Order: sequence, then structure tokens, then C-alpha cells
Amino acid sequence: MSAPKGDIGLIGLAVMGQNLILNAADHGYTVVAFNRTVSKVDHFLANEAKGKSIIGAHSVEELVANLKRPRRIILLVKAGAAVDAFIQSLLPHLEKGDIIIDGGNSHFPDTNRRFEELKEQGILFVGSGVSGGEEGARYGPSLMPGGHKDAWPHIKEIFQAIAAKSDGEPCCDWVGDAGAGHYVKMVHNGIEYGDMQLICEAYDLLKRVGGFEDKEISDIFAKWNKGVLDSFLIEISRDILKYNDTDGTPLVEKILDTAGQKGTGKWTAINALDLGMPVTLIGEAVFARCLSAIKSERTRASKVLGGPTIPKDAIKDKQAFVDELEQALYASKIISYAQGFMLIREAARDYKWDLNFPSIALMWRGGCIIRSVFLGEITAAYRQHPDLENLLFHPFFNNAITKAQSGWRSTVSKAVQYGVPTPAFSTALAFYDGYRSERLPANLLQAQRDYFGAHTFQVLPEAANDHLKVGSNIHVNWTGKGGNVSASSYEA
Amino acid sequence: MSAPKGDIGLIGLAVMGQNLILNAADHGYTVVAFNRTVSKVDHFLANEAKGKSIIGAHSVEELVANLKRPRRIILLVKAGAAVDAFIQSLLPHLEKGDIIIDGGNSHFPDTNRRFEELKEQGILFVGSGVSGGEEGARYGPSLMPGGHKDAWPHIKEIFQAIAAKSDGEPCCDWVGDAGAGHYVKMVHNGIEYGDMQLICEAYDLLKRVGGFEDKEISDIFAKWNKGVLDSFLIEISRDILKYNDTDGTPLVEKILDTAGQKGTGKWTAINALDLGMPVTLIGEAVFARCLSAIKSERTRASKVLGGPTIPKDAIKDKQAFVDELEQALYASKIISYAQGFMLIREAARDYKWDLNFPSIALMWRGGCIIRSVFLGEITAAYRQHPDLENLLFHPFFNNAITKAQSGWRSTVSKAVQYGVPTPAFSTALAFYDGYRSERLPANLLQAQRDYFGAHTFQVLPEAANDHLKVGSNIHVNWTGKGGNVSASSYEA
Repeated sequence: MSAPKGDIGLIGLAVMGQNLILNAADHGYTVVAFNRTVSKVDHFLANEAKGKSIIGAHSVEELVANLKRPRRIILLVKAGAAVDAFIQSLLPHLEKGDIIIDGGNSHFPDTNRRFEELKEQGILFVGSGVSGGEEGARYGPSLMPGGHKDAWPHIKEIFQAIAAKSDGEPCCDWVGDAGAGHYVKMVHNGIEYGDMQLICEAYDLLKRVGGFEDKEISDIFAKWNKGVLDSFLIEISRDILKYNDTDGTPLVEKILDTAGQKGTGKWTAINALDLGMPVTLIGEAVFARCLSAIKSERTRASKVLGGPTIPKDAIKDKQAFVDELEQALYASKIISYAQGFMLIREAARDYKWDLNFPSIALMWRGGCIIRSVFLGEITAAYRQHPDLENLLFHPFFNNAITKAQSGWRSTVSKAVQYGVPTPAFSTALAFYDGYRSERLPANLLQAQRDYFGAHTFQVLPEAANDHLKVGSNIHVNWTGKGGNVSASSYEA
Repeated sequence: MSAPKGDIGLIGLAVMGQNLILNAADHGYTVVAFNRTVSKVDHFLANEAKGKSIIGAHSVEELVANLKRPRRIILLVKAGAAVDAFIQSLLPHLEKGDIIIDGGNSHFPDTNRRFEELKEQGILFVGSGVSGGEEGARYGPSLMPGGHKDAWPHIKEIFQAIAAKSDGEPCCDWVGDAGAGHYVKMVHNGIEYGDMQLICEAYDLLKRVGGFEDKEISDIFAKWNKGVLDSFLIEISRDILKYNDTDGTPLVEKILDTAGQKGTGKWTAINALDLGMPVTLIGEAVFARCLSAIKSERTRASKVLGGPTIPKDAIKDKQAFVDELEQALYASKIISYAQGFMLIREAARDYKWDLNFPSIALMWRGGCIIRSVFLGEITAAYRQHPDLENLLFHPFFNNAITKAQSGWRSTVSKAVQYGVPTPAFSTALAFYDGYRSERLPANLLQAQRDYFGAHTFQVLPEAANDHLKVGSNIHVNWTGKGGNVSASSYEA
């Protein structure tokens, strides 16, 4: 047998897998393709792959035999047991230093586990987020690889070649150790949930309060897409809203308003709770999908639960309303990304990952669902200040949110007044006001906890005195007579 | 050896355990007490337990030997490994039909597991929520037992004897199978998080927008405590706000405004996400604690992030402001309990538990931290309509929230305008407006998902036609020319 020709192997010939192979072949790489149902291999070779630098394999053994060393094998199979099964079937044919890349939507704790298991066997495991859908896979996805760092020099060239480009830079860089790549992809998806919810709330307000038709909303989105909100999701919303059914009316108005949520958005919200980070916007976006899903209950509720009537002429100055709404959406989006990066920062700390913030922003800048001009600004901000504590501290976003504030408050206030639900706009504003509050009312909460459960509290440094010492855990007999403090320190 | 005299055994002599023993002894039961550090047993016997029907045991074996059959043993030890360890140490001394009760704050999946493991060995395992703190344990806690149903006839009398009473009825009843008791306790704690956060937001608005002093806020709470908000948590907040430090100023203003959250509130929010129920108020309450915890970051943020200035005379009619706030708090509380019961309803469905809603409300009516007049109304509502789909559908709560609505909207609007964070008030209102919306903007979200990921959508029944069939999963080529639908059904 002659020397193997394959630069990279790929297992899993669903649309995403096929497109990624075609993408790599277009960039001059020889790809070895395998699928469990091997007839798919033959069909692919005889059709889409015909005449390209693509080799078909009919077994895992054949796949491996056709690959140059170290072997690089991408799995694009269903997350879960299938990933473990393919890893097991590959292992007998691999050597130390070979590389397995999981490009599916795996949950990062699974990637952590696989990384450790394979490290022990000398196999370099990589979990890579892949975003951009079928179109992205074919012509340039966002790629977020993390795992065994020794793998990176061997896959960097091909990964960056096939990835999307933003101003000439590839939307792919090394994320970090173990499950860091899949983690960042998870947060990406959570932010995607948030962005989608924000656009839905804007659409709902334009329709129900502003009294706009879908065609007009499409035009508004088209205009927004030329400004600070310029993004893939605004662009497709513009297209969707002007898409008519055969009867000439907007198709979107005929679509059932129930959305699923059993995915990565939920994982992000749960992880935020686990790490104790207030990622409220993604949380509300996930819950908004849950609420949408109980449609029959909502329908019954709509018959018995009252609310304000929205007058036809609720909005006198329509252009001002639209401009304020644009600011509300922009400000809320800034909050959502600030929260997302707070979560990633905490994860880096907690999981001991060395993460590169400018690179993460750049990876999301192009190729993926949340791609936007906005992510270019975030990339720039982190490049300028790699240790930026919070996006909101950067002058660009600080100015932006300051400018947006009055429109934001006015929009939320109108939603509250007219009874249109804006959970994401509202929680973003509540977060902003809480985040910029040096003092929150949690002092009362701590007193309550000490009152009923002797959970103790600490004092503000500026209020410390001889019986209330900074750093001490203090308990007070709140029900005692006389009203004087009888503090005692003890371990909580 | 003479016939054993012990009615019930208790392991774990921390304050809660000691108080529960004294409570049971007061009701005429003979209790056998054991603690891993046995010196605690002797100390307890020689002091608090002296002269009472309490027997000390110096080993697990001695504990068991002193109990009548079937043995009833309560564990009040730290949740986690200690529970499993004590179960293992007990097993060699027990017989089929004996009963082990875990009265700690165990996570319900652990209780499910222990229930199954012990069922196989013929031991009847009960996980019981215990709420009310030290005071409750001593004079009447809320008890929420669930697990092996055969245990109930053997523990009912003693449990209901020592439990709190509400209008003569014990705040203790059988909750349901397996981990149902601990589950209901978990939701109780989540609701407790919500109630505390709502009171904190009211306090913050009274202080920052209303310009009230703590003493005045205490008086306002005292008045509220005579109305619809009559509850333990309002009562203790009233007391806290008038409690002065030695210098004559309110102690609460000296307390550090950071709260922990790594507990049952977090479990409730995560469970809500897992079950797909929009329990937004508890979610925001947990996140509010997270935000409070990053105080040093907030302090830095407060220096650079601007907001509205609150004028001294922001509120002209102070009484109207207070009355509206009371309505906002009441309405938000109704939403929180409605969400909590939605979650329990979904858990009953998902985990196949047969839960009794009036009993759950009654168990929370007295003894526990969230006890209130309000829970009496909920008990009455569920007694009247045991199959009530949602609290908001009951005329009492429907009327209440209708009446509260204008004050609620006005309060949230002021918070938004003046820049005071009210995440719980706001999310409650957004939920209410979403829940009563027959149509939410999730139709646009579904279109987006179909656009970028071919995830398909369904149509509204009223909009169906020959190419958009009800129940079909439809995909559209949104970018196609011409704007006409080319629908195809396929499996999602």
C-alpha cells in the first residue's frame, strides 16, 4: 500500500458533514469520508464529492489507513452515545499522538470527560464548536476548538482555512483546555437565544403598540441592519417579515407561536446558576420559550385574564418610537453580551481555563448565527484591553449604553403600561440598574436570614465599630428586648 | 431486656434535632436520641432533655434496640454523604418494614435513589421537608413527608402531633411517592427566595424613590402585615427595620449587601429549566443574589455607569405610592406562587407523583418561613377546585390581580424611570402579560430557526390551508425568489 493521502478524516455524512468535507476539499485538502450507513459514502462519492479530493472509506479501519500521521479525524455525529461509540471503534486503529475532533453539539462536561480519558491513552482529543448551519459549514463556519493543546499545531492550518473570515481574519482560534471549545459554543448558543428573543420583543412592540404592518417592520429592520444592529439575525428577520404566502399575506403570521428549548440555551442558564453568575437575559429567553410552549394554557388564560387596552393611536410620533426601540434593543444586547462574557470569565476562573477574550469575540464575528458588526466592536474592545473586567467598562459600550438609556427606559415603560411582555428588555434594564448600584437591598435579605435561621451577616466596612467587626460573621437576637446589638462571632 | 419503650429515634443532635426531640417529648412520645459525637448525647440528656421522655443511645445498635417495631428513625444530619453513611450503619440492625426518615435538606434526586435502594431491602424510606427553623422545630414546624406510602400510617400521628397547626389543622400531610416530600420542600425554598427578593425590592423603592426612613418603612410593613400581605417574612422585616444599633441608627443599614445562593433556590430554578416551566420569579431572585454577591465589581461599576437622578420630591402623593407598591408586591407574589404550583404540577406529571395541592398549600400555611394568610387563600382555592389548572384562573386571585394591576404597572414604571432595579416585580409582570397573550412573538422565532437551521415550523390551526397543514413540520426556502411558499413536510 502506498503512503496514505488523506489530510483529514470525517465521520458522519449528514448535511453538515458533507458540507464541511466539500469546504475542506475546496481549500486543497484531501478528505477521507466515512459514514456508519456506508451506502451514504458511495452516494456522496458518486454525486456531490465527484471529481474532488475526497476519498470514500467503508470502515473505520479503512478511514484510518488512508490518513497521514498524526491522523486527524472529525466526528460530526449526534451528541451523546454515538460520540463515545465512534471513539471506541477508532481507538484500536490509532496511535499515540493521533487526533480525534468532536465537532458536534456535545455538552462540555462530556468533552471534559472524553479529553481526560483519551489523554491517558495518548490520544489528543479536541471538542470544537461549529456554528453557521449548513451554509456556514459549506462556505465558512465559525469554529471554536478546545481540548488537548498539542493538537492545535496539527489542525490550525486546515481549521483556519475552512473557517469564515472577518476582515481577512479567520473566525477560528484555539479556545482553551478540555471542554473549553464546547463551553464557548454553548454560551454562543445561549446568546443566540437572547438575541432572538430581543428581536421577537421588538417585533411584538412594533406590531401591538406601534401598529405597524409586517412589511413596515421589515423595512424598519432593513434600516436597523445598516446601523449598530447590523447582524445576521436582523437581516433574516427583515427577509422573513416580507415573505408572503401564496395569498399575498405574510407567512410569519401563520406560524404557530410555540418554540422548543431543550438545548444549549438551557445548558447555559443552568451553568450560570451553577457558577453563580447573573446571566439573566439568557435565563429569561429560555423561560420565554417555555411560556410560548404552553400555548393551549395561554389561550385559556387570555380569555379570563385582563389587561390594558392599547389605543389605535397609542404612539403619536412613530419615528421616535422606532428610534427608542432601536436603542432599547441595542442596550439590551450590550447587557446580554456583557453577561455572557462575565459567565465565560467566571468559567475560566472556576475550570482553570486560560481563555482568550479577543479571539472568542472574533470567532463569533463571522460565520455563526450571532455574527454582527457589534461583535467587531467587542473584538476591538478586548484587543485594546485584554483584561477588561466588563464590556460595560469600555468607553465604547459605556457611551453606547449611556446614549441608549432614555430610549430604553421609555420603551420598557411603554411595554409595562400597554401590557406587552418584554421579559428580556426588562431584565436587561433591571440588571443594568442593579449592576451600577453600589448598594442593593440584600442587606435586608441577610438580616432576614439571620433572623429566622441564625445564618449570620457581615457589616459594611464603612459601618464597622467595636461590636460589628469587618469580616466577622455576626448574629443578632432580633426579637430581643431593648433594641441593642448583642453580636457574637461564630463560624457560619 | 424489657420491651423497648422508644416511639421514635432521632439521629443528629444539632439545634434542629434537639428541638424536634423536645417537641415530640412534649407531645407524650418517648424519643431515643443518638449523635455521632456521643458526648453530645450525654450533655443533652443531662440538660435540655432532663426529666423528659427522652432516652440516650450511645450507638446505632443501642438506638435501634430501644425502639418499638416497626422502628421509626429520623435522620437530621447534613445532606449528602452523611445520610448515606447513617443509612448503611443502620441497615444491619433493622428488619423489613422498619422506617428511616431523612429530615434534612436533601436534594430530591438523592431521595429518589435512596427510596429505591431501600425499597429493595424492605425498608420504608421517607424524605421529609422540615421548615420553620429552630423555633419551628421546637414548637411546630411545617413537615412535608414523602416516600414509601406504607410508612405513612405509622408516622402520621406523631408527625401531625408535632407539626404546626393552622386553624386547628396540622401543617403536615402525606405529599407523595419517592422524593416528592423533598421536592415540595425545595419548591418551598425557591418561593421563599422569591418572597424575600420581593420584600427587598419594595424596601429599596420605599427608600430610594419614596424617600422613607427605615422606621417609616417598618411602620408601612406593620400596616401591610394587617392586610393581604400578612406573613412571617413581612413581620420580621418590620422588626428588622426598627432594630437599632447602639448608636441609635438602624442596624440593617450597616449590613453588607451580599447574599449567598448555593442552595435550594438554585435547585428550583434549575429544575424549572429542566422541566421547561417558566418559573421566572425564582430565577430572577436567585440571580439577584448572584448580582449582590459581586459587590466589589458593582462598586467599580457604580463609579462609571450612569443613570437617572431621583429628585427628592419624586413622589408627590406618598400614600398613593405606598398603596400602589403594596398592590405590586401582592400581584407579584400571586405570580410567584402560580409559577411555583405550575412547576409542582409539571413535576407530578413528569415524575408520575400523585400530589395533593390543597395539602401542599396547607403545609405551607403555618410553621414555615413562607407562612402567610395568603397561603390560607391558596388552600381554600385548591380545596374548592382540586383540579384548578392555575391559581390565576380562580376567581379570588383573578379578582385580586385585576385590582392590583394598575398599581403594579405604575410601580414597575416608576422603577424603570428612576433606575431602581426591580427584577422580580418586572419579571412577574412580564410573565403575567405573556401568560395572558394568546399569541406571543415566538412565530418569528420559529421562522428564524427554520431560516438558518431548517428546523421547520407548524402553522396556526386557523391559518392552515392546502400547503400549510396543521400538525405538519414545514420548511420554507426563505431566501428563494418570488416569495411563494414551497412547503415540504419531513421529520424534524
